Amino acid sequence: MRAATLRCVLALSLLPILATAQSAPPTTASVLAEAPASDWEPIDPANLLVMEVAGGQVLIELAPQFAPEHVGNIRQLAKQHYFDGLAIVRVQENYVVQWGDPEGETEQRRSLGEAKPKLPAEFSRGHGELPFLALPDPDSYAPRTGFSLGFPVARDERETWLVHCYAMVGAGRGGPADSSTGAELYTVIGHSPRHLDRNITLVGRVIEGLDRLTVLPRGGGAMGFYETPEQRVALRRVRLASDLPESERPRRERLRTESASFAKLVEARRFRREDWFVNPVGRVEVCNVPLPVRVAQP
Amino acid sequence: MRAATLRCVLALSLLPILATAQSAPPTTASVLAEAPASDWEPIDPANLLVMEVAGGQVLIELAPQFAPEHVGNIRQLAKQHYFDGLAIVRVQENYVVQWGDPEGETEQRRSLGEAKPKLPAEFSRGHGELPFLALPDPDSYAPRTGFSLGFPVARDERETWLVHCYAMVGAGRGGPADSSTGAELYTVIGHSPRHLDRNITLVGRVIEGLDRLTVLPRGGGAMGFYETPEQRVALRRVRLASDLPESERPRRERLRTESASFAKLVEARRFRREDWFVNPVGRVEVCNVPLPVRVAQP
Repeated sequence: MRAATLRCVLALSLLPILATAQSAPPTTASVLAEAPASDWEPIDPANLLVMEVAGGQVLIELAPQFAPEHVGNIRQLAKQHYFDGLAIVRVQENYVVQWGDPEGETEQRRSLGEAKPKLPAEFSRGHGELPFLALPDPDSYAPRTGFSLGFPVARDERETWLVHCYAMVGAGRGGPADSSTGAELYTVIGHSPRHLDRNITLVGRVIEGLDRLTVLPRGGGAMGFYETPEQRVALRRVRLASDLPESERPRRERLRTESASFAKLVEARRFRREDWFVNPVGRVEVCNVPLPVRVAQP
Repeated sequence: MRAATLRCVLALSLLPILATAQSAPPTTASVLAEAPASDWEPIDPANLLVMEVAGGQVLIELAPQFAPEHVGNIRQLAKQHYFDGLAIVRVQENYVVQWGDPEGETEQRRSLGEAKPKLPAEFSRGHGELPFLALPDPDSYAPRTGFSLGFPVARDERETWLVHCYAMVGAGRGGPADSSTGAELYTVIGHSPRHLDRNITLVGRVIEGLDRLTVLPRGGGAMGFYETPEQRVALRRVRLASDLPESERPRRERLRTESASFAKLVEARRFRREDWFVNPVGRVEVCNVPLPVRVAQP
């Protein structure tokens, strides 16, 4: 293990350069502990989907800046109580949990009501006014990756798009690129399937309660679909937080990805200077940076 | 969505170049269907750890070429029935499932018997005779990634190391780099935590039954540890397949990562030329390539 020792020495020798003015190098915990209130931002209740399943709530932050048409439809569907009584129909190991209308492909499907039956694919956006905190490290899939408005993103010279990290939520589609409506949703529960980027419209991410979904039995059918109606898991109630009575409304805030604290967090994750790490890698991948959320402070 | 249409046209225009001699571009399914028997390889029963938990078996292929000392210890521990009656002690969402002796830090710990109490860290190997199928695409963490002897690996100019993809199995350690013995093991159940590469000794990967672990309730304690003994999940029996009677021995084979079929599979994963993909990305990341395993053919 002489080589390992050498690497260790090299890594240590970099520390004085990296540690800049601070006495102790920052860790994820220390960055969060020191973040000023102004670096946190309340999550808009109109962007917070509250999904009740057996065991409790799953909270999803919607991303209207990236998929305005789909988020509009999801808001409308929630207002109509469209999802209530529908079900989780698919749980595929190392891939996705998917929910919607089990009769979605049949004549018995539930009406979309005032939601739009047809939406454009919203795979990417022009950069426009989107903020962008770029990661300096290479990515296997995109020219550039980073963060924008609380979400992990990638970009090229012309466009920005949400990326398929663990916990991201997307709108299932059929063959045509524009066949998703937001009535059928999924979330990622395995190694981030980044090949789906720009192939499905991502609409948000699970910010709390994902473990109510990841523990569900995997489906035995093709692609992890449950094989019988009894295996499906009911969606008891799905509402926008803004449509819930004040007393039932979950209040969450997230660390702004445009804040100085988040930039520090990224550096803490890149270098992992805690004692335990023998080889702090000095790099990070976009799906390995936590996007901190907390109960709103009074 | 004009830009999306443009990208679509560009992607399609590449197809004639990529399709080479074949009429239909290969898919994962077609590559596997066409792989000759010689591209499959039986998994050595001396490298196959059979772990029985509630619900059934979890099969782990050990990697003696990468962590010979740890695999030696794990084989010895299994022979001694060391793991029988120990437990899964930690399930952390989007991270790891960990098992071993709940009393591992106390005087009541189970004896390691003839297994070695101290091993060297086995974070990486000299290239030596290791085969290496390189991926052409960039990686966020390592100069080069690819596959060797059935495992996902990274390498630099001097060394090769196993990487922390979903399902990889490692040997837990404390503060010192050489404090792992193989008596405490974990597997990855979330987005691949590649920052752990070269910081813990990886010893193999789960090749079957991982969903018996991923569905377990997450632990409520710090880092996902279970808080009471009742929450822990018993390890009923852990054996090397080679130590089981012939009639109980699972027989599995894997697609050789050194075979022509595996190289084709990698290309099929990079381009995803199936009809559904609007934007076949043309790249792949090391943890997004399946490592196919099947029941041994008679």
